[in-house]
Amino acid sequence: MAGLKAVPYTRSMQDCDLIVTAPFMLPVAPENAVCHDHALAIGGENIVAFGPRDEITGAYNASDVLDLSQHIVLPGLVNAHGHLAMTLLRGAGEDQALQAWLTDTIWPLEGRLVNEQFVELGTRLAFAEMLKSGTTTFSDMYFFPENVARVATEIGMRGQLAFPVFEMSNVWSSGVAECLHKGLALNDEYRHHPLVTVSLGPHAAYTVGLENLDKVAMYANELDIGVQIHLHENSAEVTEARGNHGRSWVEHLYATDFLGPNVQAVHMTQLTESEIGMVADTGTRVIHCPASNLKLASGYCPVETLRNAGVSVGIGTDGAASNNRLDMFKEMHLAALLAKHENEDPEHGKATDILYMATLGSADTLGLGDRIGSLEPGKAADFIALDTRQLGIQPLYDPFAALVHGTPAHAVSDVFVNGAQLLRNRELVTIEEAALIEKTQAWHADAFGTSS
Amino acid sequence: MAGLKAVPYTRSMQDCDLIVTAPFMLPVAPENAVCHDHALAIGGENIVAFGPRDEITGAYNASDVLDLSQHIVLPGLVNAHGHLAMTLLRGAGEDQALQAWLTDTIWPLEGRLVNEQFVELGTRLAFAEMLKSGTTTFSDMYFFPENVARVATEIGMRGQLAFPVFEMSNVWSSGVAECLHKGLALNDEYRHHPLVTVSLGPHAAYTVGLENLDKVAMYANELDIGVQIHLHENSAEVTEARGNHGRSWVEHLYATDFLGPNVQAVHMTQLTESEIGMVADTGTRVIHCPASNLKLASGYCPVETLRNAGVSVGIGTDGAASNNRLDMFKEMHLAALLAKHENEDPEHGKATDILYMATLGSADTLGLGDRIGSLEPGKAADFIALDTRQLGIQPLYDPFAALVHGTPAHAVSDVFVNGAQLLRNRELVTIEEAALIEKTQAWHADAFGTSS
Repeated sequence: MAGLKAVPYTRSMQDCDLIVTAPFMLPVAPENAVCHDHALAIGGENIVAFGPRDEITGAYNASDVLDLSQHIVLPGLVNAHGHLAMTLLRGAGEDQALQAWLTDTIWPLEGRLVNEQFVELGTRLAFAEMLKSGTTTFSDMYFFPENVARVATEIGMRGQLAFPVFEMSNVWSSGVAECLHKGLALNDEYRHHPLVTVSLGPHAAYTVGLENLDKVAMYANELDIGVQIHLHENSAEVTEARGNHGRSWVEHLYATDFLGPNVQAVHMTQLTESEIGMVADTGTRVIHCPASNLKLASGYCPVETLRNAGVSVGIGTDGAASNNRLDMFKEMHLAALLAKHENEDPEHGKATDILYMATLGSADTLGLGDRIGSLEPGKAADFIALDTRQLGIQPLYDPFAALVHGTPAHAVSDVFVNGAQLLRNRELVTIEEAALIEKTQAWHADAFGTSS
Repeated sequence: MAGLKAVPYTRSMQDCDLIVTAPFMLPVAPENAVCHDHALAIGGENIVAFGPRDEITGAYNASDVLDLSQHIVLPGLVNAHGHLAMTLLRGAGEDQALQAWLTDTIWPLEGRLVNEQFVELGTRLAFAEMLKSGTTTFSDMYFFPENVARVATEIGMRGQLAFPVFEMSNVWSSGVAECLHKGLALNDEYRHHPLVTVSLGPHAAYTVGLENLDKVAMYANELDIGVQIHLHENSAEVTEARGNHGRSWVEHLYATDFLGPNVQAVHMTQLTESEIGMVADTGTRVIHCPASNLKLASGYCPVETLRNAGVSVGIGTDGAASNNRLDMFKEMHLAALLAKHENEDPEHGKATDILYMATLGSADTLGLGDRIGSLEPGKAADFIALDTRQLGIQPLYDPFAALVHGTPAHAVSDVFVNGAQLLRNRELVTIEEAALIEKTQAWHADAFGTSS
């Protein structure tokens, strides 16, 4: 017993890697709590404790302390839908209708420009923008997901790769069989990875034939992985389905048992009451992309009606080509404004509900609700801090309002993912920002023969 | 003739104070022009020339040159409606309906807190936020406009003081007579001022009796000054007017000859076709406040329908208490998204139209269209620059899209008003930002007995 320490309090102290303290902590669980002068204790990749500052500092010996004296700390934002490398097409096709935008602008540009280097550069640009605006988890649906996975693990971002399932031959695959072959190999490679999860990403019901959708569902069920699909994005899609098949895509996918808790239905701007019932019955998840839907004049997702029906709803930016930003704070602001507009009642779209959707709600849509989305012991240490000493934030009456209506991306000071610090005092730790911007400018000049 | 210089080109060179060069200049007149490698020559308060860089540098000897090598230069944004000092109530009343928000939260807080110090601090905070996000001209409707004028001239902001005309006794006046007395004295004082203009600011038709509105119109016509009024902000206001008076406020103000080119009607979310005709016939100006209207679930102004009818439309943020920001870039993004949604067509709400509304359109609503709003010789040197080497902007395909959909307030690097530089490399020149934020925090702690 020679090693036994004599001083009583040290016997009960536990070691941890980091203690973070702040005047305002919003754990999101419970949804509307503002915890004053609290602290997080981080051990390795995880939150080991969360509580009043004195309790935590009295119970843990930390190797490092981060005293965020004027900050709001909250879970990292979860961007539940995007096409990351499309940052390189930001602003390339403006003021066009969805089908014209896809067929006249985006698809031809992609055909000419997309390759592995494009995807790695565009993805890196997306991660830089996301981290600086407080997003810690992405979802991507794009070509060369192997390269996205490589960049994500190099930089330390968490995310879901919804690998594309397309019938059309493209730069990454010759058709559905090759998509599945490559995507399932990727899933094998990453199935135990701490940061990256793999899902199936059939583009849409109108681009992937019904037999192939059945195949997607079969693989998803067999491997117990998610399926992310664009669904009911605009009224033309629904009208066409009713014309060709006598029923909407939601009705069809309900009838064929495609829908279920592992399905992440993106957009969902057009929904009848009976379709909302089908979504709720099956536990299908829904992802709201307010900026992209409005920009393409597709309408918007009735999120409060869905949530009232018991549906789990998250928020995504969609790709930068139809947004044009990857700033989840802006998306929260829009989601709140639209919920008030949808209900013609400003008491709807409460800031607490919106922040929930952008954190734990989004995490749940991606099947990650038990791992991220709230500040709770045992969850991954994915959290962000905002320095409140900013124009546009002060005076600070209500941290929820500051986050949801203050569009405060400029105030994000520190970001941690899985216990690792990726943003420190607004400086990216694992990305050289200035060099990345120069490389992007050089790529653009090379691709279009102009300087930007 | 002894002083005649011998070298030919110097004979034709003219002196100016400053030449500004940039790879992208958007003069707004014409609306959709992108001028590459152009320059502005500034003399005193004014733009003396605008043209290709080589022409300008060949024709002017400048005391100073600002070579903005990676920037977009455009006219300063014009925020056509606000209540500046309400920055101090940012986030104080959230998720409430308009009338409850006013009567239960805002008016009681104002009664307790507003005084000259409040107005000066809140206005300074507003100017700091506006300048850093590219706004060079404000419109204010708030108590103690004398103090606002003092702060504006001290800092160098341009703007309109729509002095309040209220029947209710308040901290600034005992009623309409005192409002008019003080406001008209202010107009006398500033009528030849280079930065500040004074207008009448009757709060609304439902708070200012019809006789008093007639009086307002009489003074406005006599003095040839503007009138800014909240009008048809939401459906309750219109329904009540129809119930009490048998006609809407627009119909009433049309019948009484109140409407006219000097009237700046703010909000206008509820308009019949015949009312739009009345607005167009009379040349009444309209100011769109998209974020505030959505946040209070009031609907939104049908700006494209109005513009198609020939109505001049500007954009404003409204007060920070119902927004919660004074960021005109965010407002442009919302205006574009809503125009697409209004028309169910993404080809509407074009970025060029939206930027026009936020510059020359807003300037015109304030009666300042001949002085500001575009980069044209003879106009005031009110312009801003954005550094494009930013995440969220690169790659740069389309400067209009970057401005309207990129929410790029973070990229505003330099701001000039009336020839004077007020922001230099993102640093405010006439405001000490850190001290202002500390003072705001101290005010809040003092007013509410808490720290923020």
